Amino acid sequence: MTKMQKDNKPLIISLLMTGSELVSGEITDTNSVFLARELMSDGVMVDRKLVVGDGFGAITDALLLLTEKSDVVIVNGGLGSTIDDLTAEVVASVSGRKLVENSRAIEHIEKRFGRKFLSENSPFYDQIKKQALIPESADLLDNPVGLALGFKLKIQRAICYFTPGVPGEMQEMFRQSILPDIRLLFGLKPRFGISKLNIIGLGESQVQQLIHRHIARETWDRVRLGFRASLATVELKMSIDDPASEPILKESRERIKELLAEYLFSESGSLPETVIRLLRDNRMRIAVAESCTGGLIASQITAVPGASDVFEGGVISYSNQSKTRLLGVHEGDIEVFGAVSQEVATAMVKGVLEKTGADIAVAVTGIAGPTGGSELKPVGTVYIAWGISGSIQTRLLLIKRERSVFQQLVSTVALDLIRRSLLGLDVDGIYYFDEISRKRL
Amino acid sequence: MTKMQKDNKPLIISLLMTGSELVSGEITDTNSVFLARELMSDGVMVDRKLVVGDGFGAITDALLLLTEKSDVVIVNGGLGSTIDDLTAEVVASVSGRKLVENSRAIEHIEKRFGRKFLSENSPFYDQIKKQALIPESADLLDNPVGLALGFKLKIQRAICYFTPGVPGEMQEMFRQSILPDIRLLFGLKPRFGISKLNIIGLGESQVQQLIHRHIARETWDRVRLGFRASLATVELKMSIDDPASEPILKESRERIKELLAEYLFSESGSLPETVIRLLRDNRMRIAVAESCTGGLIASQITAVPGASDVFEGGVISYSNQSKTRLLGVHEGDIEVFGAVSQEVATAMVKGVLEKTGADIAVAVTGIAGPTGGSELKPVGTVYIAWGISGSIQTRLLLIKRERSVFQQLVSTVALDLIRRSLLGLDVDGIYYFDEISRKRL
Repeated sequence: MTKMQKDNKPLIISLLMTGSELVSGEITDTNSVFLARELMSDGVMVDRKLVVGDGFGAITDALLLLTEKSDVVIVNGGLGSTIDDLTAEVVASVSGRKLVENSRAIEHIEKRFGRKFLSENSPFYDQIKKQALIPESADLLDNPVGLALGFKLKIQRAICYFTPGVPGEMQEMFRQSILPDIRLLFGLKPRFGISKLNIIGLGESQVQQLIHRHIARETWDRVRLGFRASLATVELKMSIDDPASEPILKESRERIKELLAEYLFSESGSLPETVIRLLRDNRMRIAVAESCTGGLIASQITAVPGASDVFEGGVISYSNQSKTRLLGVHEGDIEVFGAVSQEVATAMVKGVLEKTGADIAVAVTGIAGPTGGSELKPVGTVYIAWGISGSIQTRLLLIKRERSVFQQLVSTVALDLIRRSLLGLDVDGIYYFDEISRKRL
Repeated sequence: MTKMQKDNKPLIISLLMTGSELVSGEITDTNSVFLARELMSDGVMVDRKLVVGDGFGAITDALLLLTEKSDVVIVNGGLGSTIDDLTAEVVASVSGRKLVENSRAIEHIEKRFGRKFLSENSPFYDQIKKQALIPESADLLDNPVGLALGFKLKIQRAICYFTPGVPGEMQEMFRQSILPDIRLLFGLKPRFGISKLNIIGLGESQVQQLIHRHIARETWDRVRLGFRASLATVELKMSIDDPASEPILKESRERIKELLAEYLFSESGSLPETVIRLLRDNRMRIAVAESCTGGLIASQITAVPGASDVFEGGVISYSNQSKTRLLGVHEGDIEVFGAVSQEVATAMVKGVLEKTGADIAVAVTGIAGPTGGSELKPVGTVYIAWGISGSIQTRLLLIKRERSVFQQLVSTVALDLIRRSLLGLDVDGIYYFDEISRKRL
């Protein structure tokens, strides 16, 4: 599994994550997840991951331990300007180097924040200065996003990369400086033949079952499968170590695509991106009318750069009054059928199509909870209506999940129903998290 | 910081998380987050956390390392029935004990799955038997939820608890068996005097400077400060170890609240929760009109249970046409002043107040990027307008951040301006991520 170095010894990479808030569980360590996944794409499996608090002794111990046993150590956190940012000091002590004010670091700060922040009158003077202190003769790692520069130096047998804790800053530094450097030093090549498939509706175990039932076991000696499930979608990753396995990768990939059928929504790109692309291809503009999702569908669409090409706008008709005032839903319909009903969902789509002049629209009305349910319409009930003027369809789902998960799942289904419609696919697809369609399994 | 043992030495607890899928980043390690948080409630800060793959050598090394330096080691994972579940074998090897079929474990399996699973004809026979192999004379830890029992034994200087990787099983085992055992052995009591302050507008380093400039250093020997920064807000946590420090905690807390002034938005609860509470107190209903945030403000409000008490609804007027059609903004105003202008932002608030009948509203129009900027109005320019009918205010900000971060920060400022208005506070507050207000620093 683990990539070999040029001299055929396995490359040992360790991660050292520092931060009391990581050890205490106040924040979840997502940085090491990012690093491990990125390295994995190059075929390198991280050997171990050590998480310690912001103590001088703890970081020192950890750094000595890992640098003794690893070829590469990536250290994350503790490069900021506050008193609990101790990494540079530890490195200086462990490596017997002085901390010196680095002129390139000073330049970097000036460029980002202007000279006045470096004047002694600036309230930020001491802090800024602290961030420019780098162990003597370490190589700097550029931070295109933030203030704290990273640095690289050798400690014991390991090449060490020191990175800031802010995720966006660490990620850019890793992609732009560290990964290319590791590739160069250890002769790594990007992993061969990685292929992804994005799935909506089926859960990880259903996909796994489908594959194992229909594809011969021997395939998996040569093609490696990885699953990454998020709230409503699953990413299936296929990869091979040996270029000679490419035909079997291709073949099994085509077979899996057939098996997944319309549950496969893209080979790259999120579901909102897929929907935006399809709308663009069809030269259609979309509008939304949201009740229980409260703006989440629109927010997911508009998070994608270029959404303005296809997104007209929408209405968040949260109260009953706003359904009437903003969308022209008849008060009588709400009284007779209830705000969560097929009739009101349909009227919402009609209303938003008319008000905005969009070509296609989707509307949702449901009960997100924790209160507001009844015996007939329990918490988790939701009607989704969608379509173009004169051709509107609806669907009823029951998604018994906690409020924010419910909102996420409903938004995802709404987008998927638009996708299925635009592709002319069956809109009766199964969503494993929906109690009503699960009954059909 | 760390709780003392009865004999006044600090109690050192380490976590060892095993599993190749944890090291590779395929799954995020939430079990250690749970353990660290639970222990924190008892005043015990986890000393370190080591994550290793499913290799015999890796687990052996890690166990030897941690048991040499810790009083307690909680080991998670590797107790299952598959070939990569190696923990019991490692323990046997490290502690020089035999693995023996444990009769209580056999009983547990029988009770949960019935006798037939233990017949030699069962396809699960070998697997089940494997889970009953426990190191000789270890104490069993009950698993009320699943198949794999945990166990406890001493290795080197540490009491070790071995737990299954399935989150629900580990959690029950921790609560029912491990935590009571640790409390008893080391005389722990739940932690004393934790206090939180939530801040919007100031960055972590600004808060720290403010505090260190105005409060005597000696305070921090007895009161511990912790910072947790999210995208736009900062949580400041204060805690003490010694009940006798309570007066100084109270005093410094009051002083910090004075220093933070209107930048302090709550002592518990998110910014949307705070705004909802204020609206409820004022018996006011709110509406939103969103362009560049595309539904995110509404989505953050409606993510809070009970938002329907105060949230009327809103309009996502993303295209120019939708600003006119949905909100009645004059086409001429958009042509003359541009869609991103004080005039249009004001017209959006007026429009949404009129259309929804809400008491108060907020509107945003800006350039989220990456394209769409001009020299006069670069990417990151945003106008926020808010107020009640007849009294509308506006503010111009420049937030040069990546699209999704921009949308998050603008949503947060929009909510904060509502908060400040409702409290009668200065609405010219500084937001450290806004280039325009930062110039005033």
